[in-house]
Amino acid sequence: MTQITSSFPHSSRGELFYGADYNPEQWSRETWDEDVKLMKQAGVNVVSLAIFSWAIIEVADDKWDFAWLDEVINLLHKNGIAVDLATATASPPPWLTKAHPEVLPVTKNGETLYPGGRQHWRPTSPIFRRYALRLVEQLAKRYGSHPAVIAWHVNNELGCHNNYDFSDDAAEAFRTWLKERYGTIDKLNFAWGTAFWSQHYVDFADILPPRQAATFPNPTQQLDWARFSSDALGAHLDAELEALHKHSPGVPVTTNYMLGRGTRGMDVSSWKVDFVSNDHYRVQTEPDERDELSFSANLTSGVAHGAPWWLMEHSTSAVNWQGINIPKRSGEMARDSLTHVAHGADAVCYFQWRQSKAGAEKYHSAMVPHVGPDSQLFRDVVKLGENMKALAEIRGSHRVTAPIAILFDWDCWWASELDSHPSSRVNYYREALDWFVALLDLGIRADAVTSPTDLSKYKVVIAPILYLVDDPLQQRIHEYVHDGGHFITTYFSGIVDVNDHAKLGGTLGRSLDDGTEATMWTDPIDIIGKSVEVIRKYDSGDVKGRPAVTRNSAGKGTAAYVSTRLGVQGLKKLLPDLLKGTKAQSTLPPSLRGPVEQVIRSDGHTEWEFLINRTDDPIDLKDMEGDLLVSTGVERKARLAERGIAVFRRKL
Amino acid sequence: MTQITSSFPHSSRGELFYGADYNPEQWSRETWDEDVKLMKQAGVNVVSLAIFSWAIIEVADDKWDFAWLDEVINLLHKNGIAVDLATATASPPPWLTKAHPEVLPVTKNGETLYPGGRQHWRPTSPIFRRYALRLVEQLAKRYGSHPAVIAWHVNNELGCHNNYDFSDDAAEAFRTWLKERYGTIDKLNFAWGTAFWSQHYVDFADILPPRQAATFPNPTQQLDWARFSSDALGAHLDAELEALHKHSPGVPVTTNYMLGRGTRGMDVSSWKVDFVSNDHYRVQTEPDERDELSFSANLTSGVAHGAPWWLMEHSTSAVNWQGINIPKRSGEMARDSLTHVAHGADAVCYFQWRQSKAGAEKYHSAMVPHVGPDSQLFRDVVKLGENMKALAEIRGSHRVTAPIAILFDWDCWWASELDSHPSSRVNYYREALDWFVALLDLGIRADAVTSPTDLSKYKVVIAPILYLVDDPLQQRIHEYVHDGGHFITTYFSGIVDVNDHAKLGGTLGRSLDDGTEATMWTDPIDIIGKSVEVIRKYDSGDVKGRPAVTRNSAGKGTAAYVSTRLGVQGLKKLLPDLLKGTKAQSTLPPSLRGPVEQVIRSDGHTEWEFLINRTDDPIDLKDMEGDLLVSTGVERKARLAERGIAVFRRKL
Amino acid sequence: MTQITSSFPHSSRGELFYGADYNPEQWSRETWDEDVKLMKQAGVNVVSLAIFSWAIIEVADDKWDFAWLDEVINLLHKNGIAVDLATATASPPPWLTKAHPEVLPVTKNGETLYPGGRQHWRPTSPIFRRYALRLVEQLAKRYGSHPAVIAWHVNNELGCHNNYDFSDDAAEAFRTWLKERYGTIDKLNFAWGTAFWSQHYVDFADILPPRQAATFPNPTQQLDWARFSSDALGAHLDAELEALHKHSPGVPVTTNYMLGRGTRGMDVSSWKVDFVSNDHYRVQTEPDERDELSFSANLTSGVAHGAPWWLMEHSTSAVNWQGINIPKRSGEMARDSLTHVAHGADAVCYFQWRQSKAGAEKYHSAMVPHVGPDSQLFRDVVKLGENMKALAEIRGSHRVTAPIAILFDWDCWWASELDSHPSSRVNYYREALDWFVALLDLGIRADAVTSPTDLSKYKVVIAPILYLVDDPLQQRIHEYVHDGGHFITTYFSGIVDVNDHAKLGGTLGRSLDDGTEATMWTDPIDIIGKSVEVIRKYDSGDVKGRPAVTRNSAGKGTAAYVSTRLGVQGLKKLLPDLLKGTKAQSTLPPSLRGPVEQVIRSDGHTEWEFLINRTDDPIDLKDMEGDLLVSTGVERKARLAERGIAVFRRKL
Repeated sequence: MTQITSSFPHSSRGELFYGADYNPEQWSRETWDEDVKLMKQAGVNVVSLAIFSWAIIEVADDKWDFAWLDEVINLLHKNGIAVDLATATASPPPWLTKAHPEVLPVTKNGETLYPGGRQHWRPTSPIFRRYALRLVEQLAKRYGSHPAVIAWHVNNELGCHNNYDFSDDAAEAFRTWLKERYGTIDKLNFAWGTAFWSQHYVDFADILPPRQAATFPNPTQQLDWARFSSDALGAHLDAELEALHKHSPGVPVTTNYMLGRGTRGMDVSSWKVDFVSNDHYRVQTEPDERDELSFSANLTSGVAHGAPWWLMEHSTSAVNWQGINIPKRSGEMARDSLTHVAHGADAVCYFQWRQSKAGAEKYHSAMVPHVGPDSQLFRDVVKLGENMKALAEIRGSHRVTAPIAILFDWDCWWASELDSHPSSRVNYYREALDWFVALLDLGIRADAVTSPTDLSKYKVVIAPILYLVDDPLQQRIHEYVHDGGHFITTYFSGIVDVNDHAKLGGTLGRSLDDGTEATMWTDPIDIIGKSVEVIRKYDSGDVKGRPAVTRNSAGKGTAAYVSTRLGVQGLKKLLPDLLKGTKAQSTLPPSLRGPVEQVIRSDGHTEWEFLINRTDDPIDLKDMEGDLLVSTGVERKARLAERGIAVFRRKL
Repeated sequence: MTQITSSFPHSSRGELFYGADYNPEQWSRETWDEDVKLMKQAGVNVVSLAIFSWAIIEVADDKWDFAWLDEVINLLHKNGIAVDLATATASPPPWLTKAHPEVLPVTKNGETLYPGGRQHWRPTSPIFRRYALRLVEQLAKRYGSHPAVIAWHVNNELGCHNNYDFSDDAAEAFRTWLKERYGTIDKLNFAWGTAFWSQHYVDFADILPPRQAATFPNPTQQLDWARFSSDALGAHLDAELEALHKHSPGVPVTTNYMLGRGTRGMDVSSWKVDFVSNDHYRVQTEPDERDELSFSANLTSGVAHGAPWWLMEHSTSAVNWQGINIPKRSGEMARDSLTHVAHGADAVCYFQWRQSKAGAEKYHSAMVPHVGPDSQLFRDVVKLGENMKALAEIRGSHRVTAPIAILFDWDCWWASELDSHPSSRVNYYREALDWFVALLDLGIRADAVTSPTDLSKYKVVIAPILYLVDDPLQQRIHEYVHDGGHFITTYFSGIVDVNDHAKLGGTLGRSLDDGTEATMWTDPIDIIGKSVEVIRKYDSGDVKGRPAVTRNSAGKGTAAYVSTRLGVQGLKKLLPDLLKGTKAQSTLPPSLRGPVEQVIRSDGHTEWEFLINRTDDPIDLKDMEGDLLVSTGVERKARLAERGIAVFRRKL
Repeated sequence: MTQITSSFPHSSRGELFYGADYNPEQWSRETWDEDVKLMKQAGVNVVSLAIFSWAIIEVADDKWDFAWLDEVINLLHKNGIAVDLATATASPPPWLTKAHPEVLPVTKNGETLYPGGRQHWRPTSPIFRRYALRLVEQLAKRYGSHPAVIAWHVNNELGCHNNYDFSDDAAEAFRTWLKERYGTIDKLNFAWGTAFWSQHYVDFADILPPRQAATFPNPTQQLDWARFSSDALGAHLDAELEALHKHSPGVPVTTNYMLGRGTRGMDVSSWKVDFVSNDHYRVQTEPDERDELSFSANLTSGVAHGAPWWLMEHSTSAVNWQGINIPKRSGEMARDSLTHVAHGADAVCYFQWRQSKAGAEKYHSAMVPHVGPDSQLFRDVVKLGENMKALAEIRGSHRVTAPIAILFDWDCWWASELDSHPSSRVNYYREALDWFVALLDLGIRADAVTSPTDLSKYKVVIAPILYLVDDPLQQRIHEYVHDGGHFITTYFSGIVDVNDHAKLGGTLGRSLDDGTEATMWTDPIDIIGKSVEVIRKYDSGDVKGRPAVTRNSAGKGTAAYVSTRLGVQGLKKLLPDLLKGTKAQSTLPPSLRGPVEQVIRSDGHTEWEFLINRTDDPIDLKDMEGDLLVSTGVERKARLAERGIAVFRRKL
């Protein structure tokens, strides 16, 4: 991920950003005036515009209507509200898909995805690309130097609905991608292991996407398909970004990621933007979902290499697209938003400014609800705006490196969850989250990081389900340990190489543990070497008495192996033993370890400590050092309200 | 629903009708003679004929064979059995779909529904329509004045399997329907809220059905699709009815509805027939399913505006199409059939006369089972025939208006269960049924009524999940309350207008309760006005202590709001408080309230009271007034057998 | 099933066969040498070769590369390892499906099954057949007289993924099959009961497969489709077998069946091979799955008419294609393999020799695991090879007829599980297995047999869910009982004839029980005749006190009817009463009845008794007669290890 921090958007008033998606096309001209008035009341200083406006900007093929958009942008600018302008390419208009049904995506089993919703376009369609870039060019030329426009917003949640397209366009692009990756068909045959099940190819032209087959398709074909599909979205992003850079130089470009459970198909760590932005929504029916918000924000910070980023979308209360959509309780909105700030967000934006009256998302909460501004929700929005102002000084600050890193990798995510595996229950994201939550329970900070990150900064590196390990990463881990690092990995790690070929003999295990064979999480560990310390044994079943968790010394460091899935409670019990002697420890007072999440930002001179109440009870803070900058809920330094958050400032 | 009561079919012997679908084409000529003999033994005086006979009437394109049908009709007529003659259009023959595969329906995701079952035709196919009407015309001309034919039976269970067809024919018809509804594309754009997600249309020609999309399709498009799909079936009905009226004047026309859970897609209250008929099947694995039968019958009466109707199909025992098909226990067949009579059925007919030996419904029970007439089942059939004769005097009588109305509306059903809503668990039919069952538990009669019904006849009107409220209905409810009516509504009511646009500020709530905001069932109620009485408060969770059920005075009446789903048991506890002061009360002796369902028919001079035992225990009736006309189970006036039913006659 | 025992493959050294699928194309030439060395170490004397090698044998249309195969076969031969040579037709190469996409199967709802996995071919495609037979011919000509080749292996697991193909090729072949079966369209109309739902055909050309329909397709059409689809696979087998017989006379031909749950679609009892072979995999998450292995092996023996057969595939430990794949515990591999030998396998082969490094089955266990030969697994493989050698003397011996037969029939399986039935929970295989397991629990041997088997050999015949009974079978059962046999059947038996037409009056019941009506398992039994003995009554519910299990004397024998599903535990309690007076009894010492499965093979002079420990505890055998030939686990005659197996030899 190329991040050009020099082009991070700046508020003209030196503030953090606070705002929302703004869809004025859904409302009358009079409402616009009320909107601007209420935005100022709420402290809103940025809005994202035109995300779904293609159909009313290009009203027919190459027929343009910019008048309304001119008016909106000028109105906002006059009122000091900056614009993050979308390229409007997320949802092609009816006239386009009517004229070119061949841009519509096709499912794995050959079904067309028709218009009616959004994102009904093939990432690889040359026709769609041509139309989209013409639109981008028009917008960039017209608004590229408008003083209100401080950032460009490419498309929207790339891949949310059209991640995997099995059309003929996609097949053609897949073949091109494969030619670039492998060069010769022989190398592809080797990588895909086509000697199995008579799949030997003699020509790239014979290759298809892994469409619905009679049984499990080739796993490396599936893995390359995941890589290709992520790259195809990245290539679309590149194309829009290039057009924007050309016609609107100097204005930073982003696209809103969906880091969290929903980003499985998109390895955004490999995409290019000028600055990172992210969307996050809680799924309150899932376990540990409050902590999942923190993990997502933390991972976004990891993708941004610790630099600030934008929270482009989240919700003030309930959403609409889950089976059961639970409204937020008192205090949750502020706590959620500021948790993102704690993890590096310099902008807090919602979907959306005013709750839609019609359409598929009319039950999605917004800053201005259906009942209007005379509501508790809007009063909370105004209050949070004041808190955002009070936090202006933290803008631009970076995250303070935690003692522990959690390694997060898309190749591992994709490959470990392929079909035809020992268990279909392997859940990569859940395992990573479990370790993060167990560390929260112990009050120990951790940084989610992606593979290219320099590991030597961390006392401990945890790599959950490090299923696929390429040679360079294996070498880096080796060096990290021998130089004194403490490495922890789990069941189903070190199993395959970059081609998803099994490492015969359990390579990773051998190289790290000097003889500990550990190729599967249900397997007990055979102790071969002499330096291996047994930390836990199985105490029931056929494996009773055999090692379950081991640690081995290597060079100046150690490598530990957890051979089974333990869940949050199990990890919480195990971690103190695993971390013994590693110097990775909590920096919270003992009474706050668990109930409170601690996050720290710093600009090198000042440190801001965020204390987030993870519970539904108030917590006594007693004698925290530093100035209390912001506190939601009860406004006292000594007390952290239920679901509250407090920010302390300390000079270094 | 236009109902021409003057053309209700009449029995030449002044009897109620008793009979079945009769499919002689499945049996030998000798069996026909046995059939007629057994029919007379059972008191059968009507059969529905030729429902699935197209393939043997039109044996090839425009090649006709009426000989067998002539013979059957004459045989029946000779034996005094009347004929409800079907138009035979429900299942096109193999030669037709082979020649015209373009009449086959297409699913949402583009799959063709092939022949092999039944109803494999597009309601909007011009080709199918042409073939179907030619068949109808042939039948009407040939049998339209046959003395045996007392009614026409259009098609069969219209929409049961082909309710939603996403073919190109349907797309074309949908566009025509939309042009008629909206006139201009701008009005459609407003109604559908196409400003959302870039869905603005410039031409009706660009519109498609809500086929499988990348994500939630436009909700108003979905709602209009439901309306259109119901209307498309209604239009087919119109076309057949018109042909019958032309070629067989004076013979009343019906089509068998499926009022109950299964009729969701068909707003039969907007269709046109000469008289109403209905099919009903119990689903014994569902809760309250015995009471659901009553509710269905009651709703059929509502659709028929209280006038008599025909029960065209139900079962003597188990059916075949459910996952687990439970046979009826002793007494249930008579009780079920006569419960329909209680609610207005002047005909009791089964699917079918003789249990099929082959085909998909051979395990569906019938009047003559596989083991033949020497069976308990047939003996029960004969016994019921006698009871039907004993009830002849009630023919033509209407239902006696209950104190309470339950408003039932298809627009609300469709719209409240669209996707992308606060909860996917909203179940419109279940909520309406819950109120009906809770009233049964209290021994209070209620009438299920459709929107056009005059509400002023009722002391109390309950409108469960009145989600979508158009302006005229809102005005009528307003007047009803101000003129002294008592109105009760629930969570998720008054939310949207006719276009499924959110009513900002909760319009219905405001207008009725003068300040009670109640836009969502999980929301507690904010009391703003002074006249609001709090009937129940939440007593746990985040909403503890806040109002859950409120009632407000307005004009001479009251309006109450139940902000949460309570289920039958909760409603049973709440209703006595809600009904206080409304004069809606039970007319049963206290000991019978709950165990007994009471239904009353009247011709203005005489009143017939049906007492239905809802339990598996006998009930002491003690001193019921009136003549005991019929009693199933134990033949005593003072005792109602388990699963029994008794009919008392009283002069007015 | 024509079985030519004279052409059963023979080991040149008079051994049982021991081996695996061998896929050398996945490995380097150096690995081949190690393979051969390890095979000899393990006692492997046969491998199946070229099963998925089409793409590297015919590298382009009619372009052949046999060099590598020549080398492999010669290498094996030089080392005394015999070859079961596959025809390699299981998975067409990419160049073929690219050139001829019209060979790809089509699903019920019209979706194409694309390449990527295996078996992506239509059994009825003339194009595929042409290509496949050309390949078979090439192989047969080249290797048909090679001394290493002792058997031909047609295709692989025929029908595993392409059992049901709904393509136009299949439709055409279905029509041809129907013309042969019925001769005239009138006979088909009668058989299919097309008078129902207007399905009358005037021309075979109008008939389609039972593709996705609007509702339940015609049941006889579905049943004939199942018959046709099995026959279509059988026809492909015939075509390959004929080519092999022509070009490689004298070399016996087999194809690996999948008898067990997975063989539902393939009535292999009607297919033609020179000798029977079978694949079996445990599904450890299912109940009674260890016993299911025995049942499958027993049924394979039944299909082979008691003669020896080959176990062509099973696993040394976990597989990869289930949701959760559980490794085998200590002792299970040997016990599983030798259980097959007990039931008649003269060859024990695995999928596969060396665990794949890549591809969809790389997590499927093999004889040589990923970690290599220095592993417990390979040591177990070597040990089992020694046991196989010790058992050489049993080769060619047959199974000793058990006192009880369990009748197993594909027509009943298919027909009893059709849709639109009284209950969708009917599970034919489960019911048969339940009886087998209940008998195991009582220590009584039983033989699973197919319909053509001579029943008179058995003291008792149990026919679970004998749903469909044609006239000849009904007559045979009648004679069996009248000649002194004891017949037991269950709920949902004797219901329909060969056309799936209901037998009016419960024909089977009548003819056997002289008046016992029993057409449904939820029905209590009405006792009409005088000779009926009531063995069990219902003791709760509406049927309380009514007969549930009855037995009737007829001629010299008896017929019993079990009117409800009892499960293993219920059957275990009932069977002693049902078997009273039948002379069917356990031949095990009382302490072994239940914990031990007993199986006996004999060559007329010597008897080999297999005792299989079904439990996880060791069992005292005390004073078993005979020589202890083999014992896994503890090597003592008096003790059967947990999960162990012992073989005793006794002269007759």
